[in-house]
Amino acid sequence: MSQAKRTEISELGEFGLIDHLTKDLKPQNSSTLYSIGDDCAVLDYSGNDKEVLVTTDMLMEGVHFDLTYVPLKHLGYKSAMVNISDIYAMNGTPRQMTVSVALSKRFSVEDMEDFYAGILLACQRHGVDLVGGDTTSSLTGLAISITCIGEAEKGKAVYRNGAGQNDLICVSGNLGAAYMGLQLLEREKAVFNSTPHNANEPFNPDFAGKEYLLERQLKPEARGDIIKELREAGIQPTSMMDISDGLSSELIHICKQSNTGCSVYQERIPIDYQTAVMAEELNMDVYTCALNGGEDYELLFTVPLTDHDKVIQLKDVKLIGHMTRPELGRHLVTKSGQEVELKAQGWTSNL
Amino acid sequence: MSQAKRTEISELGEFGLIDHLTKDLKPQNSSTLYSIGDDCAVLDYSGNDKEVLVTTDMLMEGVHFDLTYVPLKHLGYKSAMVNISDIYAMNGTPRQMTVSVALSKRFSVEDMEDFYAGILLACQRHGVDLVGGDTTSSLTGLAISITCIGEAEKGKAVYRNGAGQNDLICVSGNLGAAYMGLQLLEREKAVFNSTPHNANEPFNPDFAGKEYLLERQLKPEARGDIIKELREAGIQPTSMMDISDGLSSELIHICKQSNTGCSVYQERIPIDYQTAVMAEELNMDVYTCALNGGEDYELLFTVPLTDHDKVIQLKDVKLIGHMTRPELGRHLVTKSGQEVELKAQGWTSNL
Repeated sequence: MSQAKRTEISELGEFGLIDHLTKDLKPQNSSTLYSIGDDCAVLDYSGNDKEVLVTTDMLMEGVHFDLTYVPLKHLGYKSAMVNISDIYAMNGTPRQMTVSVALSKRFSVEDMEDFYAGILLACQRHGVDLVGGDTTSSLTGLAISITCIGEAEKGKAVYRNGAGQNDLICVSGNLGAAYMGLQLLEREKAVFNSTPHNANEPFNPDFAGKEYLLERQLKPEARGDIIKELREAGIQPTSMMDISDGLSSELIHICKQSNTGCSVYQERIPIDYQTAVMAEELNMDVYTCALNGGEDYELLFTVPLTDHDKVIQLKDVKLIGHMTRPELGRHLVTKSGQEVELKAQGWTSNL
Repeated sequence: MSQAKRTEISELGEFGLIDHLTKDLKPQNSSTLYSIGDDCAVLDYSGNDKEVLVTTDMLMEGVHFDLTYVPLKHLGYKSAMVNISDIYAMNGTPRQMTVSVALSKRFSVEDMEDFYAGILLACQRHGVDLVGGDTTSSLTGLAISITCIGEAEKGKAVYRNGAGQNDLICVSGNLGAAYMGLQLLEREKAVFNSTPHNANEPFNPDFAGKEYLLERQLKPEARGDIIKELREAGIQPTSMMDISDGLSSELIHICKQSNTGCSVYQERIPIDYQTAVMAEELNMDVYTCALNGGEDYELLFTVPLTDHDKVIQLKDVKLIGHMTRPELGRHLVTKSGQEVELKAQGWTSNL
């Protein structure tokens, strides 16, 4: 929350707040015909070669985010990014977004300015127009609902159900860092809560050397760069999704929907150095974190064997295994050569 | 809440719940290429003559609805309908919908079945496909976010900013009934709360002769029939919106955005008999209720003077006044011929 100045939202009213937050918006996409200010946004997707993609996510205070350590600008950025990521995960290009927020009286106009600054920064970086939404009140806390709309070339959208039985399994970036960032924030929150302190002595959380983990947790980046690389390399993935609930969980989705098994090699799972250090500090198994941690927003995809030589040339993409016949099951092959069944321990359990 | 049987949502998990609620869905629209089950829904709006309309609404327990007297099936129906209404209000046809819900542990699988039964009934009646959404947990109460997507013929979408200075102002149906329905429900809730009672003796609220008011509050109908009538009569409104915050508030929006004034005649405002009786019972001014009550979901639109003879032939549409030059202001002409300034007293004040 901003401390410096506090303007009550009631001073502006709902329409005044929306006007205030969106007054300087200029659409970046030719498909955005009419944006905020009417019953609907009006879009033009009438070109003959496009399909329209729609994804939506809801984020609730206390369940998906903790405002003790998440600045509102970061929250806005991440909320937008997780939706943008879903458009890329279909091999699409994000174009428009609607943002709805329900807020209790503890939020000020300045808080909403911070939140929208994060939303608009994410939109700007990925060429997305904010075209609508809803602003309303909540009796408790903050609720956020975002819908992102994008486009894919006709017939080029990539689903979860297209993987073949010998396809190669690829993943972008590295895994487990966002989860380790969350552990770090939770640890420092616990220290803060258990240490006597007063408002005049600022609390200095110990984040030294772990900035990358924080960034992965607080400011994830949707991998539009990987989608671009794939297009430039002439690779059309057979299946794809973004990793929000953890690699294991997402791989199981793809295997089930594509009717395949899979083998993934432990030694090939990409893990950043800081992730490994943090896991050791916390006495956690780093591979368990990388497989199940979630919120990586990296891309998981499969390509035909014939694309092997192309895919190994891609920057920041790693081959981690291959699809198999469904009766062979879904396995992790450990460094010692053992086959362990892949299990989802993702965020589903929150519900 | 269902009393008969209670299945915890944790027994199914998030994905299980979504599968359970949506397993029998069959898309009705050719523009729905791929529905629930991937990162995005995939739609086809590539015909040359369509624009895409997008609207979204967020509904919070305790702010927008009170589960003491709103059955979950009705809540689902109404939540869908208010979004469908926004598509009609642009002169569009609703096609797809995403539904996100955040729910606390007090909700069961059976509760969600009721809620989705209402959503799906509304969708079915208006030819809309449920194509996606998000289901997550909430620490407190129920939060609902719905996005509806529709289409309009190219160049035929009707905005709020197109009214001309001599256009006729029209409204469908009648006004104030939904607000009176709310007053009735609140009155009976107060009676229930202040009367000693036990669980074995069911409370019988006094709704006799007021069923229409309840229906208007609990089960509003988006006026797709009016849009159809307008098309068949060859009338292209110059401006249009649906009445969710009250006639005064919406008329002021249209006047501001179209840069006009307006004169509306009190004696022409359509009011149902039950609305008038209820207002008298509650000692309220029925015109104040009709002008400011909100949640009518009727259509307010303007047409050129030259369409006068066509528009008076329309069923369930009433001519209530005309636009004027902006410097003449926005007025209600009372039955005694006085000019009173129109003021918005809509739901904005909730925030």
